[in-house]
Amino acid sequence: MRLKELGEFGLIDRIAGRVPRRAGVRIGIGDDAAALEPSPGCVTLVTTDMLLEGVHFDLALCDPLTLGRKSLSVNLSDIAAMGGRPRHCLLSLAVPHDLPVEFLDRFIAGFLERAAEFEVTLVGGDTCASRGGLVVAVTVMGEQRPERVVTRGGARPGDLVFVTGTLGDSALGLKLLRQGERQGGAVLKHLDPPPRVREGLALAEAEIPTAMIDVSDGLLADLGHILDLSGVGARLELARLPLSPPLTARTPNLGADPFLLPLAGGEDYELLFTAPPDRQGAAQSALAPLGTRLSVIGEITAEGMRVIAGDGSDYPVAVRGYNHFS
Amino acid sequence: MRLKELGEFGLIDRIAGRVPRRAGVRIGIGDDAAALEPSPGCVTLVTTDMLLEGVHFDLALCDPLTLGRKSLSVNLSDIAAMGGRPRHCLLSLAVPHDLPVEFLDRFIAGFLERAAEFEVTLVGGDTCASRGGLVVAVTVMGEQRPERVVTRGGARPGDLVFVTGTLGDSALGLKLLRQGERQGGAVLKHLDPPPRVREGLALAEAEIPTAMIDVSDGLLADLGHILDLSGVGARLELARLPLSPPLTARTPNLGADPFLLPLAGGEDYELLFTAPPDRQGAAQSALAPLGTRLSVIGEITAEGMRVIAGDGSDYPVAVRGYNHFS
Repeated sequence: MRLKELGEFGLIDRIAGRVPRRAGVRIGIGDDAAALEPSPGCVTLVTTDMLLEGVHFDLALCDPLTLGRKSLSVNLSDIAAMGGRPRHCLLSLAVPHDLPVEFLDRFIAGFLERAAEFEVTLVGGDTCASRGGLVVAVTVMGEQRPERVVTRGGARPGDLVFVTGTLGDSALGLKLLRQGERQGGAVLKHLDPPPRVREGLALAEAEIPTAMIDVSDGLLADLGHILDLSGVGARLELARLPLSPPLTARTPNLGADPFLLPLAGGEDYELLFTAPPDRQGAAQSALAPLGTRLSVIGEITAEGMRVIAGDGSDYPVAVRGYNHFS
Repeated sequence: MRLKELGEFGLIDRIAGRVPRRAGVRIGIGDDAAALEPSPGCVTLVTTDMLLEGVHFDLALCDPLTLGRKSLSVNLSDIAAMGGRPRHCLLSLAVPHDLPVEFLDRFIAGFLERAAEFEVTLVGGDTCASRGGLVVAVTVMGEQRPERVVTRGGARPGDLVFVTGTLGDSALGLKLLRQGERQGGAVLKHLDPPPRVREGLALAEAEIPTAMIDVSDGLLADLGHILDLSGVGARLELARLPLSPPLTARTPNLGADPFLLPLAGGEDYELLFTAPPDRQGAAQSALAPLGTRLSVIGEITAEGMRVIAGDGSDYPVAVRGYNHFS
C-alpha cells in the first residue's frame, strides 16, 4: 500500500491501534495534546532528538525495524544518563511520498518493541510529508525523585571515572557497514545500541554517581562536558579502556591511531559516570544483576584532561568527538 | 558568521544564554535531559509539531523572526485547545550548512519572544545539520487540573458550536503571499497567528467547553474530529461564520466557492468548542476581558454534518481540509 492511499489519519490510527494502554496516561494519542499523571514526589525529565536520513542514518545500511528501535533508544539513553525512569514518548515522522507503508509498519513495530521493553508508552506525535528524506523526531519523558537525579555537574577531584560496556564498537560498526559488512557485534552495536536504562536507574537509586552522561559524541567529548560543568579535570588510562573482541581484533587495521575509535567514536550510548573511590564496590554490585560490564578508566583531577599511554607517557589527543556543524 | 565557525555547542550556548530562568525548572538547557517540577494536583499536557521548509513554510515568503514565533505558536495552540497552561518547551533544529547564523539568531529571537509572552521556558532541544532544508521540531509541555482538561470527546446533542476570532484568513493570507502581497491582516494571520492560550485557559477555568480543538486543518476537518470522538453530529450555519473584512472584501474574487477558505482553509489556530446553550453568556463573559471575538456558528446534533446556506438549503461540502499525504 502507498502512503497516499492510507492517508495521514489512517497512519495515525494504524499507530494508535498498536499502543497498549498503561498507567499514568489520562489522554493518549488522538487529542490536541496528551495528558499524563506525574508520580508524586518526582520531577519530570524530558529530552528530544532528531534523526535525519542522510545525516544520522542511511536507508541502504539499516532495516526499518532496527531504525525504529534506535530512534527511541538514543532518547532513552538521555533519560538513563540522568538516572531516570522513562515513561512516555512522542514520535514525529516526516515521510517522503514514495516510502512504502510497509517500511513505516516495520519502523513503528521496532519503535514500539523497544518502548514495550522499557515500559514506555507512546502518547502522541506528528506526521507530515517530507520533500527531502525521512525525518524522525522523538521526545521522551521520564521521572525520578529530585535528590536522585544525576547531572553532568557533580564530579569532584579524587572521584573515579567509570564506563559501562565497551567503547568504539559503534564507530567500528559504521566503518564496517560502509565496507559492506552486515553482521557481527560491532555492526549490531551501531544499528541497535542497547540503552542503559536499567543501569542508570540502578546506579541512581543506590546514589552512586556524582556526575553522569551517555557516550553519544565520543568518550573525550562527553567526558569534556562533565569536566566543563563540574569545573574539574581528568586523567584517563588508555590501558584501562574497555575494548570488545571485535575492536581488539581489528585494531591493527584501523590506521594510524588505534585508540581513535574508543576515544572519539560516537554513538556507543554507554554510561560514563564519576563516583568516589569508596563507592566502586557498590557500583559493581549495582550492575552485577544486570550482567553489564563496568570499568574504571581514570580519575577526576583538579583541571585539564590527560590521557596516559601504557608506558606512562602522555598520549596526544587529536580529535575530541563529533560536532554537527564542523 | 557561518554556522561552521560557531559550531554545534557554540549555537547551543548562544541559545541558552538568552533563556531567562523561571520557576519550575530544576535543570534547563545543557544536560542530558531537563528536569521540571510538576505543579501539585495537575496533569502534564504534552504536544509536538514538526515544521519543514518546502512543506510548512517557504523561506522566500516569511522572515525568520515570525517563523520562530509561529513555530512555537502552533504548539501553544494545541495546549490552549486542551484548556492548559503552557510552561516549558523544547526546540530542535536541523540546519542547512549555508544558512547564515544571523537567520538563526532572528529565528531564535522570535521563538523566545513568543515564549516570554506566554511565560514558557525553553528547557532543551537538539541541533544538527540538514542536507535538505531547515527542519524545526517543537515540543510544548503544559499543565492543568485534570477535571478542567478539555478533550475532543465531550460534545453532546444540543450543545452550541463556538469559534474564536475569524475563519479563513490564514488560507487567504497564504494565497495573497503567493501572489506577491507582503502586508495586511490576512498575510499577518498566516505568518504570525496568535495562539489562543489565554482564551483556552479562561474557558477551561470557567468550566465552559464540553469539547475543544484548535482550527489547524480547517473548520470542517477539525469539527469532524470533535464529532468523531464525541459520537455526535453538527449543523453549521454559513451566515454565522465569522469572516474578517479582508476576507469579505475579497470573497467575490475567490472563485467558485466563496466559503471554501472559512470552511476548509487551515492554520487559523482559532479555538473551536462546544458548550450547552445556557453557558453562552458565561463564554462571552470569559472572553470579554481579552477582547477576543466569539461566535456561535451552529449546534451539535445526534449525527451527520450539515452546513446550512443563507436560504435554508443544504450547502454542498466538497473539501473537508488538509491531509498531509493526499
